[in-house]
Amino acid sequence: MRALRYHGVKDLRVDYDIPEPTCGEHQIKIKLHEYSSPTFIPLKDSPHPVTKESMPVTIGHEFSGEVVEIGSKAKNPSGLKVGDKVAAQPTVCCHSCGPCKEGYINCCDHAGFVGLSGGGGGMSDYVCIDEQFVYKLPDNVPLDIGALVEPLAVAWHGVNQSPLKEGQSALVMGAGPIGLGVIQCLKARGAKDIIVVELAKERQNFAQQFGATHIIDPRYEDVVKRCKEICDGQGPHVALDAAGVAATLKSAALAVRARGTIVNLAIWEKEVPFQPNTLVFGEKKYLGVLGYVNEDFEGVIKALGEKRLQPEKMITRKIHIDRVAEDGFRALIEEKDKQVKILVDCRA
Amino acid sequence: MRALRYHGVKDLRVDYDIPEPTCGEHQIKIKLHEYSSPTFIPLKDSPHPVTKESMPVTIGHEFSGEVVEIGSKAKNPSGLKVGDKVAAQPTVCCHSCGPCKEGYINCCDHAGFVGLSGGGGGMSDYVCIDEQFVYKLPDNVPLDIGALVEPLAVAWHGVNQSPLKEGQSALVMGAGPIGLGVIQCLKARGAKDIIVVELAKERQNFAQQFGATHIIDPRYEDVVKRCKEICDGQGPHVALDAAGVAATLKSAALAVRARGTIVNLAIWEKEVPFQPNTLVFGEKKYLGVLGYVNEDFEGVIKALGEKRLQPEKMITRKIHIDRVAEDGFRALIEEKDKQVKILVDCRA
Ligand SMILES: NC(=O)c1ccc[n+]([C@@H]2O[C@H](COP(=O)([O-])OP(=O)(O)OC[C@H]3O[C@@H](n4cnc5c(N)ncnc54)[C@H](O)[C@@H]3O)[C@@H](O)[C@H]2O)c1
Ligand SMILES: NC(=O)c1ccc[n+]([C@@H]2O[C@H](COP(=O)([O-])OP(=O)(O)OC[C@H]3O[C@@H](n4cnc5c(N)ncnc54)[C@H](O)[C@@H]3O)[C@@H](O)[C@H]2O)c1
Ligand SMILES: [Zn+2]
Ligand SMILES: [Zn+2]
Repeated sequence: MRALRYHGVKDLRVDYDIPEPTCGEHQIKIKLHEYSSPTFIPLKDSPHPVTKESMPVTIGHEFSGEVVEIGSKAKNPSGLKVGDKVAAQPTVCCHSCGPCKEGYINCCDHAGFVGLSGGGGGMSDYVCIDEQFVYKLPDNVPLDIGALVEPLAVAWHGVNQSPLKEGQSALVMGAGPIGLGVIQCLKARGAKDIIVVELAKERQNFAQQFGATHIIDPRYEDVVKRCKEICDGQGPHVALDAAGVAATLKSAALAVRARGTIVNLAIWEKEVPFQPNTLVFGEKKYLGVLGYVNEDFEGVIKALGEKRLQPEKMITRKIHIDRVAEDGFRALIEEKDKQVKILVDCRA
Repeated sequence: MRALRYHGVKDLRVDYDIPEPTCGEHQIKIKLHEYSSPTFIPLKDSPHPVTKESMPVTIGHEFSGEVVEIGSKAKNPSGLKVGDKVAAQPTVCCHSCGPCKEGYINCCDHAGFVGLSGGGGGMSDYVCIDEQFVYKLPDNVPLDIGALVEPLAVAWHGVNQSPLKEGQSALVMGAGPIGLGVIQCLKARGAKDIIVVELAKERQNFAQQFGATHIIDPRYEDVVKRCKEICDGQGPHVALDAAGVAATLKSAALAVRARGTIVNLAIWEKEVPFQPNTLVFGEKKYLGVLGYVNEDFEGVIKALGEKRLQPEKMITRKIHIDRVAEDGFRALIEEKDKQVKILVDCRA
């Protein structure tokens, strides 16, 4: 079968002679005849402790497809059938470390992702996934939307870990794919003001389309002052950082009200200057979140079925798998602010 | 009456001709014939919005004394009588801002302290305090211990805001007066391992006396590795930072287990380099705490009465008020690591 594989830095190839994966006893085999989105994160040159694989690995960790085989010992409590449309949670975890045993599989000591750490991936013809990570899509949710469940689950998890209650206000830093997902999840959860801070004009527009009630360009306006004005002089209850630079952390910490929470979804490239007193005065909480757990996938899929999440406009382009190495990655780099999610069509 | 007043930088004077304060209708007048501890924080040269006072102000925010008058409209629900021994919570707040209305008076937009921001202070003959901030001491708690309630309440509040449960483990960074208070509060709350990181030998010894189960000197041992070893390979559930330097934040964040909490009690002098990924991987929480609320004073006083807190050894010296400007502050500076709390005797 075909698979887009990462062979090393700047070396992505569609390989055509990959053996089809065999469905494990507790797995579901999925035909990826629909879509999945590209990814960038490279793999370190050492075998993953859970998958035992090293480079080249198949990439693509945001994907949906159709069930073609069900493992002989799968308990299959949700009654999956061959032909069902499904989304997959690409979690790789050891099931035996401290965090895994406590149910925080996203914090596994050996955490990885299908599509990054071995175990196959979305940019391929087939993939086999442990049954507890395969979710049936509601009839009214098409497969292209199914490929958005993973990034939406990151955003859902961030909002879910925050103490935000219906009718409270939130500040979102950054309106890239993750920030745009956060805006939608906040709207689905009944947030009042959804204030978005973003530099790029195109992304400010996306933010507005997805439900931002106020947009702040930090080059022209004082973020902290505006946030206080918008939210009864006190500031939002929660801030979610999906940008991850010193400036967004600083203004998020100053902008939230006393006893407010800053949720960090960003992965940081480097150390930044930080003054902890911004948390002390006002007794604020700073919360790191990472990935998702099963209930986030369930929450997103339910919300999609009930149309509380309508992420259609996140799909800004579709590209065939045979063209992805050239066109897809070029588009993502050259048109970064115009593209949200580019879907890859894996059909013949 | 006498009062030790702050007239400006390095200008502390015992003034002898201060008019005695008048007991407000809702206040309790306290005769400070026992003890109170010195403080350093200077006051800015502008009147405090709540007390309306500016320099010189009387200092001393950790004090106890004896009731000499009860305001005519005091509701006095705890039945205070003239002659009762009391401890005072030196909170100054506006009672009308957002945080005050939500009950977080420690986060008041105009927060201050009796003994720092006007409203009198502990190093004086008399002080009048709003009745909701005056607490009767149990019969078995002497007045000198009553002067320790305030710093213990800071520590109690930090532990109280953390999610620590009985039988869980904690890491304490720094064993100054606040860190030593934290150790005692952790012990009173049934913490299992109490790991303390401290540089000064004398303070390591104090830590051990007050209940530390493990002492780490970060110059000779790897803090993160030792913490994992001590706590089932996973690290403590909670870390409390009472040192407030880049190194303690970094090792606290790396040492706590997945989904653990770092509580910051320190006030930071400056920005420090910080890598938020230390919170992201493991989904850790970083919590700023400040001062205390009424329930912390109640908690400390109850624990003192029940001997769950036994802070006697925190009093390392006693000095008469007439000598405090010379001897007291010199001792605190020159013998910093040997002294924990120096009490000031305000009797004739
Ligand atoms: N926690 C997780 O599991 C997880 C999963 C996926 C992605 N991420 C992380 O989430 C973050 C966001 O992901 P993304 O794909 O949306 O990234 P992105 O780079 O597309 O989006 C970041 C946005 O922040 C904006 N920005 C930059 N500086 C700003 C500033 N000073 N003020 C306001 N906005 C500013 C940028 O213009 C951009 O639109 C990244 O750090 C990524 O690594 C985390
Ligand atoms: N949150 C509040 O309401 C509140 C109230 C009072 C004090 N504080 C703050 O709490 C902090 C502690 O107060 P304190 O009176 O105990 O201060 P302190 O200076 O006496 O104690 C700090 C201790 O940290 C130790 N230390 C310094 N660097 C270290 C390192 N790298 N590793 C380990 N230990 C190290 C020092 O040796 C010292 O013993 C201060 O920042 C103070 O401003 C906060
Ligand atoms: Zn694990
Ligand atoms: Zn107030």
